[in-house]
Amino acid sequence: MKIGIIGKTSIEKTFELVSALSKWLEDRGVEVYLDKPLAKRSPVGKAAPAEKIPTLVDVILVFGGDGTFLGVARLASKHGTPILGINLGGLGFLTEITIDEIHPMMERILAGDYEVEDRHMLLTTIRRGRKRIGRHEVLNDVVISKQAVARIIDLAIYIDGSHVTTYKADGLIISTPTGSTAYSLSAGGPIVHPTLPVTILTPICPHTLTNRPLVVASDMKVEIAITTQEPDTYLTLDGQIGIQLNTGDVVEAVQSGTSVKLIKSPYRDFFTILKTKLMWGERYGKVNG
Amino acid sequence: MKIGIIGKTSIEKTFELVSALSKWLEDRGVEVYLDKPLAKRSPVGKAAPAEKIPTLVDVILVFGGDGTFLGVARLASKHGTPILGINLGGLGFLTEITIDEIHPMMERILAGDYEVEDRHMLLTTIRRGRKRIGRHEVLNDVVISKQAVARIIDLAIYIDGSHVTTYKADGLIISTPTGSTAYSLSAGGPIVHPTLPVTILTPICPHTLTNRPLVVASDMKVEIAITTQEPDTYLTLDGQIGIQLNTGDVVEAVQSGTSVKLIKSPYRDFFTILKTKLMWGERYGKVNG
Amino acid sequence: MKIGIIGKTSIEKTFELVSALSKWLEDRGVEVYLDKPLAKRSPVGKAAPAEKIPTLVDVILVFGGDGTFLGVARLASKHGTPILGINLGGLGFLTEITIDEIHPMMERILAGDYEVEDRHMLLTTIRRGRKRIGRHEVLNDVVISKQAVARIIDLAIYIDGSHVTTYKADGLIISTPTGSTAYSLSAGGPIVHPTLPVTILTPICPHTLTNRPLVVASDMKVEIAITTQEPDTYLTLDGQIGIQLNTGDVVEAVQSGTSVKLIKSPYRDFFTILKTKLMWGERYGKVNG
Amino acid sequence: MKIGIIGKTSIEKTFELVSALSKWLEDRGVEVYLDKPLAKRSPVGKAAPAEKIPTLVDVILVFGGDGTFLGVARLASKHGTPILGINLGGLGFLTEITIDEIHPMMERILAGDYEVEDRHMLLTTIRRGRKRIGRHEVLNDVVISKQAVARIIDLAIYIDGSHVTTYKADGLIISTPTGSTAYSLSAGGPIVHPTLPVTILTPICPHTLTNRPLVVASDMKVEIAITTQEPDTYLTLDGQIGIQLNTGDVVEAVQSGTSVKLIKSPYRDFFTILKTKLMWGERYGKVNG
Repeated sequence: MKIGIIGKTSIEKTFELVSALSKWLEDRGVEVYLDKPLAKRSPVGKAAPAEKIPTLVDVILVFGGDGTFLGVARLASKHGTPILGINLGGLGFLTEITIDEIHPMMERILAGDYEVEDRHMLLTTIRRGRKRIGRHEVLNDVVISKQAVARIIDLAIYIDGSHVTTYKADGLIISTPTGSTAYSLSAGGPIVHPTLPVTILTPICPHTLTNRPLVVASDMKVEIAITTQEPDTYLTLDGQIGIQLNTGDVVEAVQSGTSVKLIKSPYRDFFTILKTKLMWGERYGKVNG
Repeated sequence: MKIGIIGKTSIEKTFELVSALSKWLEDRGVEVYLDKPLAKRSPVGKAAPAEKIPTLVDVILVFGGDGTFLGVARLASKHGTPILGINLGGLGFLTEITIDEIHPMMERILAGDYEVEDRHMLLTTIRRGRKRIGRHEVLNDVVISKQAVARIIDLAIYIDGSHVTTYKADGLIISTPTGSTAYSLSAGGPIVHPTLPVTILTPICPHTLTNRPLVVASDMKVEIAITTQEPDTYLTLDGQIGIQLNTGDVVEAVQSGTSVKLIKSPYRDFFTILKTKLMWGERYGKVNG
Repeated sequence: MKIGIIGKTSIEKTFELVSALSKWLEDRGVEVYLDKPLAKRSPVGKAAPAEKIPTLVDVILVFGGDGTFLGVARLASKHGTPILGINLGGLGFLTEITIDEIHPMMERILAGDYEVEDRHMLLTTIRRGRKRIGRHEVLNDVVISKQAVARIIDLAIYIDGSHVTTYKADGLIISTPTGSTAYSLSAGGPIVHPTLPVTILTPICPHTLTNRPLVVASDMKVEIAITTQEPDTYLTLDGQIGIQLNTGDVVEAVQSGTSVKLIKSPYRDFFTILKTKLMWGERYGKVNG
Repeated sequence: MKIGIIGKTSIEKTFELVSALSKWLEDRGVEVYLDKPLAKRSPVGKAAPAEKIPTLVDVILVFGGDGTFLGVARLASKHGTPILGINLGGLGFLTEITIDEIHPMMERILAGDYEVEDRHMLLTTIRRGRKRIGRHEVLNDVVISKQAVARIIDLAIYIDGSHVTTYKADGLIISTPTGSTAYSLSAGGPIVHPTLPVTILTPICPHTLTNRPLVVASDMKVEIAITTQEPDTYLTLDGQIGIQLNTGDVVEAVQSGTSVKLIKSPYRDFFTILKTKLMWGERYGKVNG
């Protein structure tokens, strides 16, 4: 068996955990590939660039938070390599395993005793006039937003070719169900079970007070035309990649054919993570009491 | 061809419209069945009880608002009779045809030139101890709420057997996508395209501020246990049927096998109705200006 | 010095705490008056009915949650007796002292070393035709709401005689700043510093999506006319007193001349309580992570 | 009498209206001062720079929308010159007079028959280390926000020196009551009567779901420390002036000693404008129907 490891190197603890785990895995006959910055500080494991790892291994381990996971997911999805997220400081919606659970979880992985959940992605295409100037797959969300002073942008929304509305807003989040618990939630979007075939459109501070989050089928083609004259419109993919947009550009998003293979935690399901993250069982966070 | 007509008799205009249309239909060789209160005041058309009409006709016309449509939908769904809604005062999410459009739409119906959209229903079962005390199908929503003075109820939510949270709230709306633009929207729920295979759980004034609307698969089994000690808990089906609940009762909701056959307006799709109803194109209703 | 004690008798711990504190106070020469149910189980202290206590003592101690405090506040406000709230299970917005802090706080009270904050009340008058059928002072809120099946009520809102809007909604909360962190917050109202001279109107599930919480001056006269034909409309005062309303009734609310004298915790201010209650410092309860 | 006129020159109609009104005013013996770009195209009226006009005249007329009014208000406030806003395309919260009402309103102004409402401003100071790098007065709001890709900023909030919370958010709006119906409303803030002595803090897309709009006294000192490491933080004053902020900068806002003298429309009060702008009387914009 071959296992690749990628991790958040800005957190010191990562190196120690990865070295120890690599040793533990090699002792069990696993071939271990480490992302280059990790390999430099680990006595065991082969170095490989992050982009290459998905082509070399059977399973990828990600040490970090959900942000780290998102970056690896975009690399791994086209190769179909399953990914397990290990959260360095608690629990994430994508990094479902805690540090304490690493060893029992690894025993399961070595035994092939684990479940994989397909998380669909959004294929995002940017068109400028007749040219396609970008094509990206995201696991969480695509955000169109303004830069600072310009207070408002105009975005004409089409779904399967039909005009839905023209938002005057700070921006718009086009989210997968996986992304529904990330930025979309903080903008007032609903929590959506990650396996559903839907796309969520959540306006950011819409000036029309009747504009509300909208849930459509993930195979519907969402098109956003930048009709605003403000020059400072921006596209952000998974909160990590930024692209400057011009007036007239069209951003198209539709369910992608590829998906991310997320190795599920056997210790908790989506609802349990939700309950923990949103502190639904807590005494406080409540009105009255 | 046989056509049945049911209408809102508290609006005087209904009688006149129905009589005229019945005549027009009979002139074209259609056999017309009228709900008894309508038949009384119409010179043409056969009288039949509303419950019988779905078994006698090929198409049902409903004159009224969305509320009238909901009542007819629950009668018609088990027989699979298609329903066309004609709104008496504008436009509804279910009553998609305006008075002005009646004749062109009828021409299409007589020619068989119309589309039917399946709208799934929620099968709702109420259990008290080991007994099943009620079983209902709803097209819009199931609401569990308190009666007046008691300020709060406790509702334990399970999805496919897994505990999700225990709401302290005024109540909970379990909505189909069709119902997402009704009560759920006024409680902060998302707008959901009516054909999606999902169920929306929208808490009403939850005391835990992190409780947010939740979208799950429509074939997931949602169970709500009434854990509150307050005696005044109520179940409301499609806003029309009320049932008193006791502490310990369990309300279960899951996608029903039957669905409502809604005859679609050829003049506007869901997004156009949404835009009109929520005034998304209006100058006002906006911040600034 | 004379101190009165009233407490939540459904919690066993109350008796023990009150007995011990009464002894401690008497040892220091304080004359102690206990609400009758407490007096029965305390070896020291004089029994008095709760209604009488505010007229007999210099300071009232309330053992319980915010609900218990509200009841005592309505009794004490007209006599101007200062009240200290001791929360039996953590911290409340009105019961700002924890069990651990009882003794140091009592030392301060005996030394006269404490601050009192005036919390204004809403004087609520109910008119039926030309008759005034009720007059109440509340510290938190006045709620007009429907009983179960009736899904919606119509409420015409006037401020200083000017018509503002007619809500179609589940109900309306008229809240003091003190009440802003209670029911109003769970219905989407803002958090308002408790000393501000304002009244908050928060609609409950309004059907007009542009209806939003409204903050007006506390000396503006808010009048709500029950224009709905639904017979089941209810008025709730501080979540504790319920009154059935009829169509045509008018509920009027305006700042009262009397106020509640709340003895402030020296250990934490409003913002600290807010931060604790709403878990603003917590790792979880957050999107992402 | 001396009247100054400033208008939005990007709208052609302004020139025609201003010329006609200037003539009408001169015919009545009024000395008319026009902002330079307007003077160029008007046969009557003296040219003056906008900054000078408040020092020369008794009353300023603003032709435009609320944005145009805000700019003039900042110029006029320190001189105490009353301002009347004439909306070019309907009605605004600050531009309360419609085109149709110009002449009757002018008759009143010439007769001295009008009311002035004081609208308080927020004095905003920016500190970098020990230096004060900016000082501005705003009528609507001060916004701290991120530039595009950086998804989140950290803002530590202090009120009268007491730490309230540290927002992780897209940004924060500090609004006057006048500004409550502008950007703050689209971010979920309450509607606040414009004469109240309060300041509203509305977080933009806060990641902590229990963070809610907060209303404090306008004479409380609000301080925001930019604790985020993201370099792209921006301050926007009344949506019109932008200032780049650095990590460590502190933005302070407190009620200013000066205020804007807004000439009130005799035709409608705040609630009437609100009702019109938010379409509270409309048939649509409603759930159900």
